[in-house]
This record gives sequence, C-alpha cells and structure tokens, in this order.
Amino acid sequence: MVIDPPYLIFLGDVPDALAAKTGLGIVDWRPEWCIGQLRLDGCQADANIPDLSIEEAVAQGVKTMVVGAVNAGGVLPAHWIASIVAALDAGLNVATGLHTRLASIDEIRDAAARSGAKLHDVRFSDQRFDTGKGTKRPGLRCLTVGTDCSVGKKYTALALEREMRARGMKADFRATGQTGVFISGRGAAIDAVAADFISGAVEWIAPAAEPDHWDLVEGQGSLFHPSFAGVSLGLLHGAQADAFIVCHEPTRTMMRGVKHGLPSIREVIDMTIACGKLTNPAIRCTGIAVNTQKLGEEEARALLAGLESEYGVPATDPIRFGVSALVDQLEIIRANA
Amino acid sequence: MVIDPPYLIFLGDVPDALAAKTGLGIVDWRPEWCIGQLRLDGCQADANIPDLSIEEAVAQGVKTMVVGAVNAGGVLPAHWIASIVAALDAGLNVATGLHTRLASIDEIRDAAARSGAKLHDVRFSDQRFDTGKGTKRPGLRCLTVGTDCSVGKKYTALALEREMRARGMKADFRATGQTGVFISGRGAAIDAVAADFISGAVEWIAPAAEPDHWDLVEGQGSLFHPSFAGVSLGLLHGAQADAFIVCHEPTRTMMRGVKHGLPSIREVIDMTIACGKLTNPAIRCTGIAVNTQKLGEEEARALLAGLESEYGVPATDPIRFGVSALVDQLEIIRANA
Repeated sequence: MVIDPPYLIFLGDVPDALAAKTGLGIVDWRPEWCIGQLRLDGCQADANIPDLSIEEAVAQGVKTMVVGAVNAGGVLPAHWIASIVAALDAGLNVATGLHTRLASIDEIRDAAARSGAKLHDVRFSDQRFDTGKGTKRPGLRCLTVGTDCSVGKKYTALALEREMRARGMKADFRATGQTGVFISGRGAAIDAVAADFISGAVEWIAPAAEPDHWDLVEGQGSLFHPSFAGVSLGLLHGAQADAFIVCHEPTRTMMRGVKHGLPSIREVIDMTIACGKLTNPAIRCTGIAVNTQKLGEEEARALLAGLESEYGVPATDPIRFGVSALVDQLEIIRANA
Repeated sequence: MVIDPPYLIFLGDVPDALAAKTGLGIVDWRPEWCIGQLRLDGCQADANIPDLSIEEAVAQGVKTMVVGAVNAGGVLPAHWIASIVAALDAGLNVATGLHTRLASIDEIRDAAARSGAKLHDVRFSDQRFDTGKGTKRPGLRCLTVGTDCSVGKKYTALALEREMRARGMKADFRATGQTGVFISGRGAAIDAVAADFISGAVEWIAPAAEPDHWDLVEGQGSLFHPSFAGVSLGLLHGAQADAFIVCHEPTRTMMRGVKHGLPSIREVIDMTIACGKLTNPAIRCTGIAVNTQKLGEEEARALLAGLESEYGVPATDPIRFGVSALVDQLEIIRANA
C-alpha cells in the first residue's frame, strides 16, 4: 500500500486527543507531510497545524486526506461521510484505518468512481504478496521486538529513524501496522495479511537496499504472545534482521488480552536469536528500549543501568532519554558490514 | 467452514489420477461419505465408486458436490460450469478448493441464489475468528509437525485417527488445509486466515472436548520454513499440543520453494517444545513419521531403528508400516491424563 503525501489530517469531532491518536502521531513524525487539519464543529483534538478547508488543502498541494481519528468501535460515523465525499470530489485520495471499508459506503464509492481518487483502507490488505523466499537481501535491518504487544515497538523504530537521519545515516522506518503505514506512506498492516504471506509481505515492505542503508522495521506482537506469535515469527523471518531491540514495559504483569504472564527479556533475546538465525545467522540483540513512564526518574535510571549490566547492551527509554546509545550500536554494525 | 456430507465427487475430465488427487483422497479416508462420482467424457481418473448422475445423487441423499479435481493453474474450466450449475439447481451445495471463487462466476452465483444452496471455497477464508486466547482447554491434542512442507503431516494425522477409532478410542482428525477440510467436513485452510487469527482459528478448529478425547491436528509448513513458519507457530500455539509427531522425508535436501536446507529432527523437536510450552507446558514428542517411499524396505527399517534409538520414541512409515506404535504412546498419555 502506497499513500501519496502530503496529507490533510481529518480529525472529525472526536471528544478528546486519545481518539485522534493516529492523526497526532502522523503530525508528530511527519510534520513536513501534514499541511493542515480538518476539524468538524465540537472537535476536542488539535494537532496544532493550520485548520484548512478541503479547497484550501487542494490549493496547497495536498494529495490525500487521512482520517486520523476513530470513534468508539472503529466504525465510520455517518456524519463524517459528507467530508469524505467532498474530499474525493475535490480530487483528494482518502485513507483510513477504520473497521469500515470506505468502498462499502455507496456515497463514498460513487464519489471515488466520479473523481478517480484512490481509497485506502489500511486495516485491510487486498495487496497480493509472494511467499517469503528467505534469501538474504542487501541492506541492513533492525527489528523492534517485544515482551508483549503495545510496549513501544513503533515509537522506538521511529525514534531510531529520526536520530539516524539527524546523523546523516541512511535510514528508513518500515511500517507493519496501520498508523505506521500513514507515517511512512508505504507498508502493510501485517496482521491483516493472509497467514501464508507474512514473511513475503515483510520482504516487500523492507526491500533490498544499499549495503550501508538501515531499515528500521516496526515489530508486532511478541514471540511469546499466544494470540499473535505467528505474526511476530513471520515478521522476524521476513525482516532478516541484522539487529533487534527488545521493547519492554516493566510494570506490566499480564500480556494484553490473555491470561499469560510476560516473558523475561532474556527469554525474548534467546528465542529471537534461535528463530531469527534461520534467515540471518548474524542476528544479534543491540539494545533494550523500556517504557519507564510509570517510574520516577531515579528508579528508571537504576532499572536501565541494571539491564545494561545484565545484558551487556545499551538500555534506554526512547521518549525520556533518547536513542543515541542504540544508534551507536547500529553505527558499529554498519562500519563493520 | 462446515461442509455437509454425504458427497458426490466431481472429477471432471482430468487427464490422470494426479489431477484428481483431492477427490481420491476424500474417497480413501471417508468412503462412507462418498456416495458416487460424477465424471465427464474423457475423464482418466476413477475413484472406484459408482458413477452417478446429479439426479441419482440427489435421490441417494447426497448433500454436497465436491469438485475433487484440478486443472493446470487451479482455475475452473468453463466446461465444468454446466455441471456445477446443474448440481446447484438440483439443490446440492458445491465445494471446491480452486483458486477461482465459485461466486465470481455469474451463472454459478445466480444458480446458488435460485436454489439457496451453499457455495464453499475452501481455499478462501471468509469466516471471522476470534484471536487466540491461549487458555488451556479440555481434551487431548496431537499435532503433526514437519521438517518441511509436504512430508506427510495430513496423512499421518488421518492414519492416527483411523487406527485410534479402530481401537475404540475417541479421536477426530482436525483439518487445517483444503483437502483436509473436505475429509473432515469441517475446518479451515489456515494459511488463508488473516495473520492475526491463526491461533484463534485453530482454537475453533480443535475445540474443547472430553478429557479422554484426542484431536489429531493436521500440521502445516515447518517452524524452520522461511515462507511459512508463522503459520506453523500460530498452529502450534492454537493446538495447545499435548503430543507432537515429527514428519520427515529423508531424501529431501532442500526445503520446498526456497534455498534453505532441512533442519534436523532434533532441531524440530527442540524448537517445537521451546515454542509449544507457551500454551501447553506438558508438550512432548511422541513419535517420528518418515516417508520412506524412496528407500528399499531394509534401508527403511534400518533408518527407523536408528531414529528410535537416537530419539527414544517410536519411528515408523505410516503408509508402509502403520501407526500402531505411535498410537500406543497416545494411549499411555490418555491413561495418565
């Protein structure tokens, strides 16, 4: 799926910033693509970018309106349809991560047919992929893996990209989830791909590249999550990761949505290497990223220092302390590649 | 997907038995469901069951016509459509494993709408599943795993079911692939399920059962296959296997479709236990099933004896020497459960 920037971020009339999380995330990570926001009366979210009408957005070169908000249930509210139709009639493409397919709504399908604009439902995967080949391809790849779902894998990969680009390194975030696809303008919601094509999709998402180029591949789930481990394994095999970073939330006691406890970081490292070496025998753990939001600063620093001495790799909270030490490790691998 | 027996097996006008492999397999394993076959002029395959017209099949109580043949490319030949329409008009359901969706052909869709009969495309999965929960459910489960694809996982599971039923044990084959779905009348082509739902689909395929009941779960792919390992892992987690049997083809040097060599049986056992214990800490290897077709009898017996002494579990060729020793192990587990 390839989504054309720049974007107009549609925030609807959501009641709070949480409901606009996708849109705010896009603005955070791709401010240069986000020309403006479109908000309806009563919207309680604000991305702090110019409020534009559809006509103004078109005049400023916007190519795609991204629905960056959700209501309860992930369904498209009826009163958002008029804005989507107007965007399509003005020639903009429209992209959403909602559970409703845009083309399932007659007015939207008809408007897209009239204008020839593209409809992107990033939650669905209609793209055909080849099965994974497993043959090592050029370029370097770092995958974020997790002790659970929702432990900062996307954020860490994006923070790495930002820091690496700031240093002049060749680096691209590679999206495997919905929000990530909007942020990178390309990718696939890997959890929606037919099971046979998980690793093949990742081979497409993070294709062959120059030998000194890093892909920062957004991980999904956990090899230890009983619902989603198959996704995580196919992703690991398809990424052919040279390096991986373990993401962790230290106060969580149960994995999300199930009755399983979390694995230890050691278990995740060992299993990731045991499985990952199938498609890249050089795979190694190069760091640990911890979400320390619920800890005081002193407690957080002590935890990270303990992890560094236990595992012999840098440990950081990407939001609180940055990812400089993690990037240093990737620089070393690149220099020796 | 639930397919109603009994069946009329449609073999079309295929040029040889190989092209009718699916149909012949159904007749092999479910003779009691296969009332007759429907063959067109020139058909070179024969399931050795009565040739019936659609009218005769209906009169004998057939519920579903299964397209048990493929032509090159897996597409539905135009000259088979008339038979399918006639079956639908006579009130039969129709099931296929072809790449063409039945409902994508206007005459077929219209005929199904007229009669209210069901169309089953087992290669596609439109069914919605829950995500896997990973919570241990009652009943015993044995999963066939492999050093590669196409090493006898389905055959072994079916042979176990047959032997166990002959002994009066409670046992059900659980299908995770197309042909298996026809044979069991229920199941899902797990490789076509959206990646997020692999383990959840298997929890549905092999549901909670009596404590002394065995599910024989058809494995797919291999944890060491770079294209399909995600499927294999989700299947392992969803099956919550108490026991697994490693299937192997000893003359194969490369995994199917890729440039990877085969793992050793030891590697498969170790990885299956390391991963499988997430949803069933009691998981153990209870046997090895080897396809010795390309070996002489003496060579085959020597190989199996060597494997038994190396791994400490029964090793057999299910086709050549039966699965009695494999079932003995499952009887022991049941007796101790």
